[in-house]
Amino acid sequence: MRRLPRILVLHGPNLNLLGSREPAIYGRTTLAEIDASLGELALELGAEVETFQSNHEGALIDRIQEAHGSAAAIVINAGGLTHTSVSLRDALAASEVPVVEVHLSNLHQREDFRHRSLLAAVAVGQICGFGAESYRLGLRAAFASLPRRRGR
Amino acid sequence: MRRLPRILVLHGPNLNLLGSREPAIYGRTTLAEIDASLGELALELGAEVETFQSNHEGALIDRIQEAHGSAAAIVINAGGLTHTSVSLRDALAASEVPVVEVHLSNLHQREDFRHRSLLAAVAVGQICGFGAESYRLGLRAAFASLPRRRGR
Amino acid sequence: MRRLPRILVLHGPNLNLLGSREPAIYGRTTLAEIDASLGELALELGAEVETFQSNHEGALIDRIQEAHGSAAAIVINAGGLTHTSVSLRDALAASEVPVVEVHLSNLHQREDFRHRSLLAAVAVGQICGFGAESYRLGLRAAFASLPRRRGR
Amino acid sequence: MRRLPRILVLHGPNLNLLGSREPAIYGRTTLAEIDASLGELALELGAEVETFQSNHEGALIDRIQEAHGSAAAIVINAGGLTHTSVSLRDALAASEVPVVEVHLSNLHQREDFRHRSLLAAVAVGQICGFGAESYRLGLRAAFASLPRRRGR
Amino acid sequence: MRRLPRILVLHGPNLNLLGSREPAIYGRTTLAEIDASLGELALELGAEVETFQSNHEGALIDRIQEAHGSAAAIVINAGGLTHTSVSLRDALAASEVPVVEVHLSNLHQREDFRHRSLLAAVAVGQICGFGAESYRLGLRAAFASLPRRRGR
Amino acid sequence: MRRLPRILVLHGPNLNLLGSREPAIYGRTTLAEIDASLGELALELGAEVETFQSNHEGALIDRIQEAHGSAAAIVINAGGLTHTSVSLRDALAASEVPVVEVHLSNLHQREDFRHRSLLAAVAVGQICGFGAESYRLGLRAAFASLPRRRGR
Amino acid sequence: MRRLPRILVLHGPNLNLLGSREPAIYGRTTLAEIDASLGELALELGAEVETFQSNHEGALIDRIQEAHGSAAAIVINAGGLTHTSVSLRDALAASEVPVVEVHLSNLHQREDFRHRSLLAAVAVGQICGFGAESYRLGLRAAFASLPRRRGR
Amino acid sequence: MRRLPRILVLHGPNLNLLGSREPAIYGRTTLAEIDASLGELALELGAEVETFQSNHEGALIDRIQEAHGSAAAIVINAGGLTHTSVSLRDALAASEVPVVEVHLSNLHQREDFRHRSLLAAVAVGQICGFGAESYRLGLRAAFASLPRRRGR
Amino acid sequence: MRRLPRILVLHGPNLNLLGSREPAIYGRTTLAEIDASLGELALELGAEVETFQSNHEGALIDRIQEAHGSAAAIVINAGGLTHTSVSLRDALAASEVPVVEVHLSNLHQREDFRHRSLLAAVAVGQICGFGAESYRLGLRAAFASLPRRRGR
Amino acid sequence: MRRLPRILVLHGPNLNLLGSREPAIYGRTTLAEIDASLGELALELGAEVETFQSNHEGALIDRIQEAHGSAAAIVINAGGLTHTSVSLRDALAASEVPVVEVHLSNLHQREDFRHRSLLAAVAVGQICGFGAESYRLGLRAAFASLPRRRGR
Amino acid sequence: MRRLPRILVLHGPNLNLLGSREPAIYGRTTLAEIDASLGELALELGAEVETFQSNHEGALIDRIQEAHGSAAAIVINAGGLTHTSVSLRDALAASEVPVVEVHLSNLHQREDFRHRSLLAAVAVGQICGFGAESYRLGLRAAFASLPRRRGR
Amino acid sequence: MRRLPRILVLHGPNLNLLGSREPAIYGRTTLAEIDASLGELALELGAEVETFQSNHEGALIDRIQEAHGSAAAIVINAGGLTHTSVSLRDALAASEVPVVEVHLSNLHQREDFRHRSLLAAVAVGQICGFGAESYRLGLRAAFASLPRRRGR
Repeated sequence: MRRLPRILVLHGPNLNLLGSREPAIYGRTTLAEIDASLGELALELGAEVETFQSNHEGALIDRIQEAHGSAAAIVINAGGLTHTSVSLRDALAASEVPVVEVHLSNLHQREDFRHRSLLAAVAVGQICGFGAESYRLGLRAAFASLPRRRGR
Repeated sequence: MRRLPRILVLHGPNLNLLGSREPAIYGRTTLAEIDASLGELALELGAEVETFQSNHEGALIDRIQEAHGSAAAIVINAGGLTHTSVSLRDALAASEVPVVEVHLSNLHQREDFRHRSLLAAVAVGQICGFGAESYRLGLRAAFASLPRRRGR
Repeated sequence: MRRLPRILVLHGPNLNLLGSREPAIYGRTTLAEIDASLGELALELGAEVETFQSNHEGALIDRIQEAHGSAAAIVINAGGLTHTSVSLRDALAASEVPVVEVHLSNLHQREDFRHRSLLAAVAVGQICGFGAESYRLGLRAAFASLPRRRGR
Repeated sequence: MRRLPRILVLHGPNLNLLGSREPAIYGRTTLAEIDASLGELALELGAEVETFQSNHEGALIDRIQEAHGSAAAIVINAGGLTHTSVSLRDALAASEVPVVEVHLSNLHQREDFRHRSLLAAVAVGQICGFGAESYRLGLRAAFASLPRRRGR
Repeated sequence: MRRLPRILVLHGPNLNLLGSREPAIYGRTTLAEIDASLGELALELGAEVETFQSNHEGALIDRIQEAHGSAAAIVINAGGLTHTSVSLRDALAASEVPVVEVHLSNLHQREDFRHRSLLAAVAVGQICGFGAESYRLGLRAAFASLPRRRGR
Repeated sequence: MRRLPRILVLHGPNLNLLGSREPAIYGRTTLAEIDASLGELALELGAEVETFQSNHEGALIDRIQEAHGSAAAIVINAGGLTHTSVSLRDALAASEVPVVEVHLSNLHQREDFRHRSLLAAVAVGQICGFGAESYRLGLRAAFASLPRRRGR
Repeated sequence: MRRLPRILVLHGPNLNLLGSREPAIYGRTTLAEIDASLGELALELGAEVETFQSNHEGALIDRIQEAHGSAAAIVINAGGLTHTSVSLRDALAASEVPVVEVHLSNLHQREDFRHRSLLAAVAVGQICGFGAESYRLGLRAAFASLPRRRGR
Repeated sequence: MRRLPRILVLHGPNLNLLGSREPAIYGRTTLAEIDASLGELALELGAEVETFQSNHEGALIDRIQEAHGSAAAIVINAGGLTHTSVSLRDALAASEVPVVEVHLSNLHQREDFRHRSLLAAVAVGQICGFGAESYRLGLRAAFASLPRRRGR
Repeated sequence: MRRLPRILVLHGPNLNLLGSREPAIYGRTTLAEIDASLGELALELGAEVETFQSNHEGALIDRIQEAHGSAAAIVINAGGLTHTSVSLRDALAASEVPVVEVHLSNLHQREDFRHRSLLAAVAVGQICGFGAESYRLGLRAAFASLPRRRGR
Repeated sequence: MRRLPRILVLHGPNLNLLGSREPAIYGRTTLAEIDASLGELALELGAEVETFQSNHEGALIDRIQEAHGSAAAIVINAGGLTHTSVSLRDALAASEVPVVEVHLSNLHQREDFRHRSLLAAVAVGQICGFGAESYRLGLRAAFASLPRRRGR
Repeated sequence: MRRLPRILVLHGPNLNLLGSREPAIYGRTTLAEIDASLGELALELGAEVETFQSNHEGALIDRIQEAHGSAAAIVINAGGLTHTSVSLRDALAASEVPVVEVHLSNLHQREDFRHRSLLAAVAVGQICGFGAESYRLGLRAAFASLPRRRGR
Repeated sequence: MRRLPRILVLHGPNLNLLGSREPAIYGRTTLAEIDASLGELALELGAEVETFQSNHEGALIDRIQEAHGSAAAIVINAGGLTHTSVSLRDALAASEVPVVEVHLSNLHQREDFRHRSLLAAVAVGQICGFGAESYRLGLRAAFASLPRRRGR
């Protein structure tokens, strides 16, 4: 039996707070709900998702390294690390799989320091501004970026 | 009988060349094929698309103004105007409908002057880097951004 | 019989929308009403006005070139082109008549890229921030700038 | 008997030299002549003007504070302080009346450090480049900005 | 019996070294002594303090998240993270309690990259330069910032 | 009988308006009330305060020079001069007593030009963002900075 | 019979004014005279020229696209668009023929914003400063750049 | 009897402190001693000096204006105003006599903001770094710059 | 028996991947092989090395703090943290032993953000560009920097 | 017999290597071949050329000074000095003959520091990007720039 | 008999002063001693060194060109030319052998203009901060960079 | 017999042209006349001058090094090298005698790149703008800077 391609979905610092605080900005959908929704969409597309959240840059890097060989693509919302972590960028570049960068909010409408993503240059592409829907679009984009995917 | 929401898809300068030249960069899909694919996806989502391409900044602005009242959302790949046209930005801001900005290539991997989008701040969000798939994701994003859409 | 000096009033991109959309920002006065008001004021001052609006940079340049010999001064609100069009600047510089730059809003209270006017250096002066009144003041300023005007 | 609205006209450093020195740049009209002309125009519009000149930043701030309650609007040509005085800006912001910024010369054609006005962001609008006429246009603009003016 | 408001005091990287190394710069007071002194001052003010030090950005963010509901205010000296951590800023912003930023040294007298605090914009205010006294002033400031405190 | 150390408290331009205008930003406490409160706190700490306000940069410098020999420390809120006055900085540097810089508002949340303090580099430290409380904290900080103070 | 290689010569905004206005800057040669001179030189070199002027960015892009297959090289003086048009740059890059950029004046002696050419990076080379002679040198350069030209 | 040319020597803020404080930086010569030394040197050269010190920008400007007609040249050490006062620059430019800028210290070895002099562009030349000797050299330079001086 | 001086060798994020991925950039030598080679070289020089790798900034800081008293020098390749970690810099500065910064690649030939090392200012020196040999040279440099080493 | 105008052709550092090294970048034509080709073209145009190469900035300046009176124009490819030598610029400015700046490569496609030419502002014009042909075009341009040349 | 590979060691301006002046900064080792030490180390490694010092940029370039064919690698400390000489960079790039850049001092701890090396991008790597030891490490690095060296 | 202190006067590139070319800018005084005048002034002050001009940076550095031990001070007008030569700066810093920087023109009124002097930070002071008189003032300043001079 063929295994479905596995897509790793990474959530950076503070994304575990989704839904419970500052709903005016980030909406009322919790991270668990987003993960569940991505699981369903993955099945629909013919893939599996694995999700991981951490407030620790190092833990995210460890996770990316561990995924080597098992993950076929990565969808990542690195939160604040998007703008500051060269190490995360290097880890993603070393992962050798397609990376899709997603953001809940439209970074271009926020503070200047959020306009630059250190990760963008090592990702296939970037999706931002559509709230929880950004993740779903990102999963589709990651699936579409798989080098030789089946069942499409 | 209820009318389907109409989504205007705008293609800026040089996008009419898609598929025929520089395929190594932009792929072999023609603009007509992209438009057809968007038409099918729209039907699937329960919407209609109308597409327009021009090499003239003024013609794109005229088209956005004409769409007032008929278009429920706009998906735009403004090409080189993305980085230079304040007038196009003003026209989109005045359109009073959700705007989704899409790009075939990952702008963040190209020349510095392509890193800044003048349009991003007036769009709901931005999708870039997935080739023709960027348009399809953009259409989904626009549909998801419709204020009160049916049949979801 | 002596002819009255003719002052060309140019409106750039999106100014045709005045009064119908985003009234909170731009007020409820339409462009037609502004043009009419300028016509009356011109008569009062002893001049004539001719007005032209376009969303096309090229059309505005064409119009400036055509005015050579007939227009004694130019009042221009170039909208978004104010900040981006070297070509419009060059056309105004070549017009060899006094140019007055006007803006409805106070550019210095808006986005950074609106703080720089490429046109200012080739204009006699600049008036901004007084809504439709900016045009009326601009017409007075243009009239006062006429090299040898009568009836003052 | 109703009192006419009073408009305070402030002249910053070195403007007392108008007319007597560097006439090639600043013209031959003296400050006294400008003040007289503004007085006449005010009467015509249905207002009064009060004028004040000082080379001292602090004296100008004192004067703005003293005008609280009596001045309905302020027209100010702050001279060199335009580009350097945060304190003057704060005083104007605290005045709670419409402020109109005027300049004799077109600042955009002069040294780079004159291109930025610290005052512009707290003024209704800005008028520059028309010599003594800038003041007259500024008075009209201030009058038009009065919240509930009579006799228009 | 009413509970005293609890104020969380956070110490970032390298602050555990206080007192033992580089005393010429940072003084001879140890972190334990500072914490003890804050405990006493808190009692005097009618509050409790809880203190936490870590060299790990992620651990500080975890701690801020855990404090939700129990801490009434946060006093933070983020050390080197002050200038680099967007994630810490986001965690503080999400904490929904008053945040007071403190620093032992006067950042404005040190290297350029220490002049910008990423945290300042999400704090009520900032205190720097007074050595261990900065913490004590910060605790007072935090106490004064409590929305509805008793016993003052 | 021993004299109490005297601390000079300086208020820069526009601070005389405190409490009477723009209370939403600056609160309803007047400058007189702040001065009174500082007087009481000083007594409590074992010190005296002397206060001075001026809208004139020169007057503030004169006052600093006159305080030589009598003032043991300076607490200063220089208002808008904070960002523009090299002369005030030089006067403070020449005072040879500890200087504490205070601000009512959190400068880091306001316009860019308010982010840089010319005075910070010659002060012991800086306190901002706590409204009238900033002054009280500043007085404590100044007292704690006295080289050989009694009664602590 | 072999056809001569055809070289497309493009003139951007305001170049139609050549010879008639501002002769002190741009000389007295008209655009028609330049075009005629280029026609003669082309024959001498063994080539043909086709010339086109427009004040419309879009029209210039259209013309470049239409030349696909027929033009063997492009000589372009884009006027003010040189510094502002990413779209024109993209059109030239897509043309797949050698592009030679020419300017009448020495851009490096004019305003700062004229020092950067967006087109230079997609051209074989650049010639500026020699008045009408720039075009003639540009035609020679374009001819020398033809991939396999005859009769040299 | 012919009158000797009169040279106005201006000292800006804090220069009245010379000799009494921070002698390590500014030396032990007092301002009175410098003024006396300049008086002697002037006589030797065949000129008179008049000196003026103020901590008030406005007072310095007033003094420059009053000197019109009587002063043949100006030597100025504007202290901190050197880097911040556009108004002082304008006053000097309007004085229509040769201006020589002097500084005790070598500005290029101090903080970055002291590297730019707003006055330099309106002075004949600049002398800095030689302590009190800078003034003496400046007086010689001013004397040498007098348009038609006798007795050399 | 005398103990050999101990040199701590620190490897930052992603350096554990050496040899196994992206060999074209980073070579085929694994981190274990580098560590072994350094052990041999240390013996040859008369020293010991201790090595540590982590993807966690905090863990690296913890390790530096723990080395206090036992390590005589530090050789560090901080990977991506080189450019972003003020906290790591502060930890190294507090270590009070000679620090040698090494990099496998020549940072000056890579992205702009890799040109600045936050660590360089607190290190004795920097070695970059020689692949695994950089570490060996770094160990020699660290040994040569030991304050009073034996057996050289 | 009339003498032909003499044009001095200067080659800066490293241009003596032309043709022998890095032919992929600079082509296989040697400097001697270029000089010979220029000699022939000069005769054809009715001029003479004199050529000089040096790796020494000072020698190039000496040569320019020596040419005073004998050279009617200068064609210069200053190599790396183009971007760094103010002295060479000053020497060319002092030469009082038309200067034409040429470059083999298109500087705008190379490193950022090559985009600025210090010489451009003192040259009639600039030609770059056409390899050895740049020199030939430059010679034509210099010839066309001769003030009163014969035999054209 | 096989010849040993020859490594050219270049010393830029002022390095001939080593040991005799400013020993606090540059140490007491003379350049002759450094050269002798390098000669010994070379023999030990199985190589020869040739050394050259000049204060003339041009002489250094000449020497690099002459070394073509005989030198197998270059070790260079270009002194002040490191930061200013594009011509030296071009000469090194054209040398087609491995280049190692060394510096006595840690450039990152000195003036800002010393932080950028124009040479770094054309060198294999860079070593700085270890005094005379930098040269020895540089020689080792150069030896390790030889394409096919024997006897290792 | 006591020897007079010797002051070395250095003239950089193009200063040998003084008096013969561009007299409108640089005056009609030749370099020989300046040198003669300095010789006379030196005698009057009780010193000797030695002068040297070169267009070669290296030759100027050689000369400074040779002066070690014999020159008691240096007066230098480095011409264009002022803004570009780090090597010259280093040579002057190593000279260990007082250096006075002079310029004929007021650099602050010329091109931006002339506003920064690399030499200023290693000089006692700077004199610019007084033409040939700058040298004479510079000689006086150098004489006044001699550590223990006689006969004053």
